[in-house]
Amino acid sequence: MHSRRDFLRNTSLAMGGVLIAPSIDSKFLRSFGNNMPASKLKLSFKPYTLDLKHVFTIATSSRTTTPVMLTEVEFNGVTGYGEASMPPYLGESQESAAAFLSKVNLEQFDNPFELEKILAYVDSVAPKNPAAKASVDLALHDLAGKLIGQPWYKIWGFEKEKTPNTTFTIGIDKPEVVRQKVKEAEEYKILKIKLGRDTDREMIEAIRSVTDKPLTGDANQGWKDKQQAIDMIHWLHERGVVMIEQPMPKEDPDSNGWITERSPVPIIADEACQRLEDVVKAKGYYSGINIKLMKSTGMREAHKMLILARALNMKVMLGCMTETSCAISAAAQLSPMVDFADLDGALLISNDIFDGAKVIDGKVTLYDKPGNGVSKIK
Amino acid sequence: MHSRRDFLRNTSLAMGGVLIAPSIDSKFLRSFGNNMPASKLKLSFKPYTLDLKHVFTIATSSRTTTPVMLTEVEFNGVTGYGEASMPPYLGESQESAAAFLSKVNLEQFDNPFELEKILAYVDSVAPKNPAAKASVDLALHDLAGKLIGQPWYKIWGFEKEKTPNTTFTIGIDKPEVVRQKVKEAEEYKILKIKLGRDTDREMIEAIRSVTDKPLTGDANQGWKDKQQAIDMIHWLHERGVVMIEQPMPKEDPDSNGWITERSPVPIIADEACQRLEDVVKAKGYYSGINIKLMKSTGMREAHKMLILARALNMKVMLGCMTETSCAISAAAQLSPMVDFADLDGALLISNDIFDGAKVIDGKVTLYDKPGNGVSKIK
Repeated sequence: MHSRRDFLRNTSLAMGGVLIAPSIDSKFLRSFGNNMPASKLKLSFKPYTLDLKHVFTIATSSRTTTPVMLTEVEFNGVTGYGEASMPPYLGESQESAAAFLSKVNLEQFDNPFELEKILAYVDSVAPKNPAAKASVDLALHDLAGKLIGQPWYKIWGFEKEKTPNTTFTIGIDKPEVVRQKVKEAEEYKILKIKLGRDTDREMIEAIRSVTDKPLTGDANQGWKDKQQAIDMIHWLHERGVVMIEQPMPKEDPDSNGWITERSPVPIIADEACQRLEDVVKAKGYYSGINIKLMKSTGMREAHKMLILARALNMKVMLGCMTETSCAISAAAQLSPMVDFADLDGALLISNDIFDGAKVIDGKVTLYDKPGNGVSKIK
Repeated sequence: MHSRRDFLRNTSLAMGGVLIAPSIDSKFLRSFGNNMPASKLKLSFKPYTLDLKHVFTIATSSRTTTPVMLTEVEFNGVTGYGEASMPPYLGESQESAAAFLSKVNLEQFDNPFELEKILAYVDSVAPKNPAAKASVDLALHDLAGKLIGQPWYKIWGFEKEKTPNTTFTIGIDKPEVVRQKVKEAEEYKILKIKLGRDTDREMIEAIRSVTDKPLTGDANQGWKDKQQAIDMIHWLHERGVVMIEQPMPKEDPDSNGWITERSPVPIIADEACQRLEDVVKAKGYYSGINIKLMKSTGMREAHKMLILARALNMKVMLGCMTETSCAISAAAQLSPMVDFADLDGALLISNDIFDGAKVIDGKVTLYDKPGNGVSKIK
């Protein structure tokens, strides 16, 4: 058996002649060796309301704000930042998140690296609450990455340069407003259109009158007839739409599968794929899945979903809600490995309070900052 | 856009008031900033022959040595260690490994953290060669972990305390020799028996005459009739056998699946499950899979196989060849997450040349050393 002193000596021996500064972890070990009390994980949270730059309209609702819950997990003076974004139609709220987070006792843990155990516990505290769970997961990842001193994309072995162009969503509106929005979105290489209304063709034609950029379409389960859906998808494909999200209701996998078989473009499960267990269920019915941290309960399960989807030869899209740069920067860590990214969430709000991964010339851009690469700016 | 100086300043700001020593990575960034040449990855390798303590007999052959290839990947003065173990019946040799490794050009890479890209390249150099590929993967993981300053079990978020008891293999032999071997294996909590010979029942009865420890059985595809196999499995189950590996030939998934449906104990795919793509194929035919680094091409794919098998609700076993502590210590990083571990490979040889994870009182035991926790002892 090795003593801690042996560990420290052997570590430096293993490093050969290179100067490697002692990691924060060996500092903790020394503290333990001196019988100092081990630090506990401390969770705190507070509500925040995101102001949207434009009224946000999808197939089923419109709104001008998004309620979020901001979290922090602190360990030995280092703080990780997390966020739960809760668009009302998804069923979570600041009240439900506060109720959930009040039940989460992280002080029982003194090793922030044991993410498998800690996050299994968080998941077990109550069913559902995926965004509230994600807010803890994100803060823990940010913390663990900061303690390790490396960003998560690097810990996961991904290439920073392989980040995708993000889609930028053009909201449903009158043709003249749509044309104006497209012009304002000049920076973005690929645009996303919300579908599922009577005005879909009018929207697409308005966009095509001012740009030939590739488009993606999100029906949000809005199509009710599979033959009409596939006819529309062919029409959209001829007009440069390269991918469609969730054409029909998630409760009807057979119709979505029927469409996927016949579609000239990938069909992505969004509402139909929330967590890891849904990836296998989506196989055969959809071409791929849309991973969102607020659905998956956070980064750890999202990373597993990515690996699973790849092993099943499925396309992977990475999506978001309207979120601050805190959650967007967390999602961006996974982005070098995806086919499509829809990470415009922080661009749609006027009161971001985090600095993190950015969208530069339409491309998700990672920096070599540890953890999720986020810091507070206000 | 942030300059490198901004990055370094922001990093220290993000750390709040805690003293965090600069990571080796920010040291590299400074080097780049000073226009110093970036270091390249350098691969070297040399053959080594493992001497077995006992003649090793399975259903199809006997031998007293195992040829291996030892690898090193060096970057900026830090060295990672890897190993290819190549029992002859699996088709690789020191010659084939040398031929493969001679074609691997790691000097095209200057970022040892981009494991996804580097290992995709290594896999593309030639088909097959899983052990030779693993020898590069292991050395790269050991290197990256040492550069990060953390062991892989921790980077992966696993609990050190959750490591399993390893099985210890009792080779096929005469009853009096078997009884003696069982007594010598007093330290181990669970024993593994090679099956598939006429003497199977005699072996089990000899063991049961001296111990009531749980047993696992490995048929190595040695059973040729499914009804005889399930009858034998019921007989073994009554005598405390808790799991069976690969009852029938891998080319016959239906018979193996027929056995799995009827078996009172988990049936694990070994020969039938080599790499990631085989996990999905094994689902429905086997209760679980045996992951071995020398089959999976190394740790990165093994970790993906673990995540995939868990998502598919399959049991996971972690196995090995006769190997030095270099490869065993690499496998041990994954072991907190498995149901069964067969990591006795380094215990079966008399000329180990590495210090790493150990088996203590029958339990796989991890240390808080960075990378794969291996260092040379000779």
